[in-house]
Amino acid sequence: MAETPDLETVLSIVEELWPASLAESWDAVGLVVGRRDRPVSTIHFAVDPVSAVVEEACDAGADLLITHHPLLLRGVTTVEAGTFKGEVIHRLIESGCALLTAHTNGDSAVGGVNDVLAEILGLEDSAPLQAAESGLPEEGLGRIGTLPAGTTLGEFAAKVFGILPAVAGGVRVAGDRDAFVQRVALCGGAGDSLLAAAREAGADVYITADLRHHPASEAREAAGVGGRPFLIDVSHFASEWMWLPAAAQALDRALADRGYDVSVAVSGINTDPWDFVITPGR
Amino acid sequence: MAETPDLETVLSIVEELWPASLAESWDAVGLVVGRRDRPVSTIHFAVDPVSAVVEEACDAGADLLITHHPLLLRGVTTVEAGTFKGEVIHRLIESGCALLTAHTNGDSAVGGVNDVLAEILGLEDSAPLQAAESGLPEEGLGRIGTLPAGTTLGEFAAKVFGILPAVAGGVRVAGDRDAFVQRVALCGGAGDSLLAAAREAGADVYITADLRHHPASEAREAAGVGGRPFLIDVSHFASEWMWLPAAAQALDRALADRGYDVSVAVSGINTDPWDFVITPGR
Amino acid sequence: MAETPDLETVLSIVEELWPASLAESWDAVGLVVGRRDRPVSTIHFAVDPVSAVVEEACDAGADLLITHHPLLLRGVTTVEAGTFKGEVIHRLIESGCALLTAHTNGDSAVGGVNDVLAEILGLEDSAPLQAAESGLPEEGLGRIGTLPAGTTLGEFAAKVFGILPAVAGGVRVAGDRDAFVQRVALCGGAGDSLLAAAREAGADVYITADLRHHPASEAREAAGVGGRPFLIDVSHFASEWMWLPAAAQALDRALADRGYDVSVAVSGINTDPWDFVITPGR
Amino acid sequence: MAETPDLETVLSIVEELWPASLAESWDAVGLVVGRRDRPVSTIHFAVDPVSAVVEEACDAGADLLITHHPLLLRGVTTVEAGTFKGEVIHRLIESGCALLTAHTNGDSAVGGVNDVLAEILGLEDSAPLQAAESGLPEEGLGRIGTLPAGTTLGEFAAKVFGILPAVAGGVRVAGDRDAFVQRVALCGGAGDSLLAAAREAGADVYITADLRHHPASEAREAAGVGGRPFLIDVSHFASEWMWLPAAAQALDRALADRGYDVSVAVSGINTDPWDFVITPGR
Amino acid sequence: MAETPDLETVLSIVEELWPASLAESWDAVGLVVGRRDRPVSTIHFAVDPVSAVVEEACDAGADLLITHHPLLLRGVTTVEAGTFKGEVIHRLIESGCALLTAHTNGDSAVGGVNDVLAEILGLEDSAPLQAAESGLPEEGLGRIGTLPAGTTLGEFAAKVFGILPAVAGGVRVAGDRDAFVQRVALCGGAGDSLLAAAREAGADVYITADLRHHPASEAREAAGVGGRPFLIDVSHFASEWMWLPAAAQALDRALADRGYDVSVAVSGINTDPWDFVITPGR
Amino acid sequence: MAETPDLETVLSIVEELWPASLAESWDAVGLVVGRRDRPVSTIHFAVDPVSAVVEEACDAGADLLITHHPLLLRGVTTVEAGTFKGEVIHRLIESGCALLTAHTNGDSAVGGVNDVLAEILGLEDSAPLQAAESGLPEEGLGRIGTLPAGTTLGEFAAKVFGILPAVAGGVRVAGDRDAFVQRVALCGGAGDSLLAAAREAGADVYITADLRHHPASEAREAAGVGGRPFLIDVSHFASEWMWLPAAAQALDRALADRGYDVSVAVSGINTDPWDFVITPGR
Repeated sequence: MAETPDLETVLSIVEELWPASLAESWDAVGLVVGRRDRPVSTIHFAVDPVSAVVEEACDAGADLLITHHPLLLRGVTTVEAGTFKGEVIHRLIESGCALLTAHTNGDSAVGGVNDVLAEILGLEDSAPLQAAESGLPEEGLGRIGTLPAGTTLGEFAAKVFGILPAVAGGVRVAGDRDAFVQRVALCGGAGDSLLAAAREAGADVYITADLRHHPASEAREAAGVGGRPFLIDVSHFASEWMWLPAAAQALDRALADRGYDVSVAVSGINTDPWDFVITPGR
Repeated sequence: MAETPDLETVLSIVEELWPASLAESWDAVGLVVGRRDRPVSTIHFAVDPVSAVVEEACDAGADLLITHHPLLLRGVTTVEAGTFKGEVIHRLIESGCALLTAHTNGDSAVGGVNDVLAEILGLEDSAPLQAAESGLPEEGLGRIGTLPAGTTLGEFAAKVFGILPAVAGGVRVAGDRDAFVQRVALCGGAGDSLLAAAREAGADVYITADLRHHPASEAREAAGVGGRPFLIDVSHFASEWMWLPAAAQALDRALADRGYDVSVAVSGINTDPWDFVITPGR
Repeated sequence: MAETPDLETVLSIVEELWPASLAESWDAVGLVVGRRDRPVSTIHFAVDPVSAVVEEACDAGADLLITHHPLLLRGVTTVEAGTFKGEVIHRLIESGCALLTAHTNGDSAVGGVNDVLAEILGLEDSAPLQAAESGLPEEGLGRIGTLPAGTTLGEFAAKVFGILPAVAGGVRVAGDRDAFVQRVALCGGAGDSLLAAAREAGADVYITADLRHHPASEAREAAGVGGRPFLIDVSHFASEWMWLPAAAQALDRALADRGYDVSVAVSGINTDPWDFVITPGR
Repeated sequence: MAETPDLETVLSIVEELWPASLAESWDAVGLVVGRRDRPVSTIHFAVDPVSAVVEEACDAGADLLITHHPLLLRGVTTVEAGTFKGEVIHRLIESGCALLTAHTNGDSAVGGVNDVLAEILGLEDSAPLQAAESGLPEEGLGRIGTLPAGTTLGEFAAKVFGILPAVAGGVRVAGDRDAFVQRVALCGGAGDSLLAAAREAGADVYITADLRHHPASEAREAAGVGGRPFLIDVSHFASEWMWLPAAAQALDRALADRGYDVSVAVSGINTDPWDFVITPGR
Repeated sequence: MAETPDLETVLSIVEELWPASLAESWDAVGLVVGRRDRPVSTIHFAVDPVSAVVEEACDAGADLLITHHPLLLRGVTTVEAGTFKGEVIHRLIESGCALLTAHTNGDSAVGGVNDVLAEILGLEDSAPLQAAESGLPEEGLGRIGTLPAGTTLGEFAAKVFGILPAVAGGVRVAGDRDAFVQRVALCGGAGDSLLAAAREAGADVYITADLRHHPASEAREAAGVGGRPFLIDVSHFASEWMWLPAAAQALDRALADRGYDVSVAVSGINTDPWDFVITPGR
Repeated sequence: MAETPDLETVLSIVEELWPASLAESWDAVGLVVGRRDRPVSTIHFAVDPVSAVVEEACDAGADLLITHHPLLLRGVTTVEAGTFKGEVIHRLIESGCALLTAHTNGDSAVGGVNDVLAEILGLEDSAPLQAAESGLPEEGLGRIGTLPAGTTLGEFAAKVFGILPAVAGGVRVAGDRDAFVQRVALCGGAGDSLLAAAREAGADVYITADLRHHPASEAREAAGVGGRPFLIDVSHFASEWMWLPAAAQALDRALADRGYDVSVAVSGINTDPWDFVITPGR
């Protein structure tokens, strides 16, 4: 009969799927809250460890919340509940729910954020835009690959829009709607640091999130008038949410393979901060 | 009869309007290209010193291009034309067109970017969010003020949208469409560094540009569930373009007051990098 | 009838007694764990937020533990219970006990660690060895003062030993047992940074804790052969424990003055790390 | 007939015994005072280059004083005799006595401070706690090894006390007097930087010097209640003095092997800064 | 029939002669001004990109000016003509003349500044004083070699004086006029960073430029009274000018070998800053 | 009857003449070698604490050598005699001769290096080029003043040459021999950091030492073709030697005024490193 694992056991399986060694040096991944000897029968996945998500997980009786974003990326010297991070920590400990981060290790790993995006978009021969410092050749930040058949930038952007979870802001595109695109670079989350890598890799279009005016403008100028790569700016949340179902399934299977019975769920809360938009087209 | 000033003369009038001493310490403002003894009979204003804008100015026979954004914010050791910044410098010098930057001095000054935004939105009793280190009390970054009559967030966002030049992405809003707002904070361009100042100043809503996921999400969490200030994220370009007509008029008048006859124009080119969007509402 | 205050109320009284503005810039003082709206009917004082102390406080049903030493002096990116600091945080939150630090503010304040030591030793005309950067002249690190009557170093060391709580290591003395001493400098806790200040202030003897070989040896060499100030090295824990009864009494009175009824206790646990010593004299 | 070497010759033999390349990067080892062409017929060994030791060496007509601790670890811009380091330099030069430092090279080398301590305590299979960056596997900081037979912490501490030169403070112990110990880590001098290495190496007890409250307390907390490694805090001076007779003998033999006749002595001065202690047991 | 190359083609040949990878990490070499698609039929060589040199090149109709010294060694945020560097950039772009720097790559390369000096002085078996970090063994800064026959320092200095272009200051010599010299170290331009390398390489005399009082005085003291290496301080300009004819010839040949017809000239302007001297001998 | 002071007494008089508080923050001035209780009957002044000067002072039985340049500007961790600085320290201590530095305090003080140069050149209304951070308005680095009557650059350079002690290199001049000069800036020793200050102060000519190619060339370019200030580059040693007779006299008088009888001498050794020059004019 299937058994309930303890948190320590779940952590060891998570480490196999998304090894901490793949995280960037500035990142803070791994267990943030919780007792390693507690049983884990329910696991919740989400992008952001924000109050609504923590509320949802605790209300659902989750024993472990796994988020993509770290709660404590920069060190804190207090966790008192008057700060929103301290409130989250109090709520989790009071509810007996652990918190675990799989951030840039979850981006870079095989089957991670970028791999899932590349697969859903149907990219062939995809490879990292920036290889992991220590890891396999297929691990690293961003991906570059080729669509089986070329299309227009407008059609491709519509496809990206259709695939991602709906958020108020949709997707923004820089480039000619009718231009032909086939070679695609992408980076889930904020990817302005890979703009040059996407150009040097010969991408027709680069999909990422959180592009501000200056990096986007300088990339467009460096590409030359009307030049490539075009840019598709998507929701940071949406681009990373895509990974959650795949990650949940992978963890579920790995637990089942070892004879554990754990209920795994993905949060349905949209934590994109924007509630509505007003655009010229409306 | 009206006289044509030389560049040195124009510089001295610009210094009175938007003194270099108001610029932030990390900024690079003032004359970037040009000969100070050349006559200036045509002046062009724009947000970004990008190739299309420079082309427009040179084609129009401008003797001076005044932009909000610096071309060389970080020092360069080459200006060869194979880089896009070098190309801009070659084009300007070959055309005899000077380039002048009024950046954070243009933000902070009385009659600068933030003052113009506050006035157009009808804010009363507006004051800087962050006082200038050396300057008058009414100079500094951002503004906070009060609408003559309260309104809903949805109505107010529609008003902001209607006032700014149209760009593909429109405006994004975080908050309840029906919530009441009256106290308004704003910062033209990228204003994430003033998110805490807007909250501490008791703003109902904060208008700025280039808000990424993490600053926006943390600001919403810090505000508490559904709390204030709400956020309106506008186009970086659009928010700063608003200043150009006022700046052009101010310079035109100051020149005329001194008996100079100069033709002053504002660029009509949209240098927001985004060409189209796809949103759920379309 | 006497009322039970909430934590926010207790914090405001603590701030009056030991203002956070007196803390050194590198320090981390104030509330570390807890919810500000919870009632506080029992307060526990201790030097160190270590497991035995936290156990004692939680078992006693304390609502608030006030310690001299910070739990999180350097920022942490995880509070999971597998680290000893995370274990302490879990235990406190699970027990509903808040944690508050009064460290260098508790050292420097009038009625703080150093004032209490000076008073118990009977120093007259005592003043800080290093004035607080912002504060009253009588606030600051360390104290220097004069004994009503001179004595020998041996007699004085015996008096210090007799006053402090007993710890295994006792007190160590550098200097001639029969030398005359009257002017006394002191610094509760680790005070090697004030060795030069004690010499320059003309002290006959300097009492502090945690003196290592090199600072002690260099101070003795700089004093000249057999010179002053002599050194008395006491237990870090013991020197700071002396403050607890006085601090507890001060807080108790301030609460009572405002009509609050709170039970205040001082931990009896010795958190000096040393269990026994073997010395030539035994 | 045996010959008197010059200082240059002695330096070359010292380099073979305790190579400067084994010193830590922050250290300052080698010749500090002296003329390389002077004959050396008498050599004095000591831990600290303090005034009493220099007096003793000069009075004994030593041509060379070899100390473990550097006189000028941090660079000086004056050697005037009003500073105690300048006084030492004047005294040495006026007496024609050279000064040589063998510090962390003397710690790490085979036959160095840590090796001698390990041997005297009877450790078997001892190895460095932290391997030298460039050197043999048996060179490095600290040592870890196993006692031939286990014993109690109390018995072992008494053995350590009995072996080291007597100093006022004796040895301090953290841990249960009756606990069983067999695996021993040690580091002559101040070894708080190796506390984690001792725990990770599975030591039952760690012997070192200059342990302050916070490192000792944190190490005890990290070890868990009553956990290992226990700590034995000894005199910095005493732990390093142990090396002197062995070092003197090694140099004496190496000189004799090359046909040189030099008189080698070890200082008998106790430079531990503490003169007496008062402990509960007295 | 011979063809006119474009600037891009000339750059690729320059890269073969003096590869950018040989430049020091702090240096700024390569193309500074110009359009890569412009034809180059006249090339001008000079040491310094100063106004007189740029005037000369532009008046001569040069399409490319190659200088040893960088115009923009430290990054600039403005090129306005009111600065002398901005004036140079305006003059060059207005005249259609490109500017290229071959600085420490031109020093280190085979056939570079130091090789040319070594050859003209007749040094045999010459090798770099400091090998290039990445490069061939015969590439690097400075050179050391041997004269076929020894001579006196006075005779040798006179030879150096006779070979270099005449400048007001001539050559300054530290050492005995009648001392014998045969092993010669040299470094074109400011070579005080190689003073120790010249001594360690066993040079009898070291020729370089821009020696100030302290480096020269310390080098003479370190050499011992009257010791070696003696110093010959020459004009920075003159020592580097020597390379120009050889560099011009090498580029001319490389262009001709590829079938290009380009006119290559060397500037005759003396850019040593000194106009006249008054010495005891006059 | 006149008395012999001890070194401590001499130091206190030196402090009145050239206060240590006038030294730059990077400088190392004051007593470097010596015992403060020793009698001082003979004092020697020199520019550089080099071996020949120390030899001369010790041979002359000096009790104190006062030099302008520091022996230990950067901290040393050894003074062994195999280094030339250690040799100097050994020689001084063995001879019982103290060493004292009066460097940038000696430059800035009233009656210091720059004042003496200004006076000898006959400058009127002279003031510092860079005011001392803490000090009187007439204290600081460099001087600027006006000649009673204008002259040609050639005549003025000849006058400077005639006044300074003769050194091999003489003086180098940048500028037109026949140009008129009247306003003179000067800085004894290496003064390239004041080149801009001299220009901004409106100097016709700037006299200093150790000017290298780049600072001199950039200063000439910044001045415009043939522009002012012209440059006169003199011997670093010679420019500072000028101060010695005045300094010796000032100290002599101050000692005599207090009833002390001390013999004060100025070294006649030329410590300019250059022995001979070869110039076009010879």
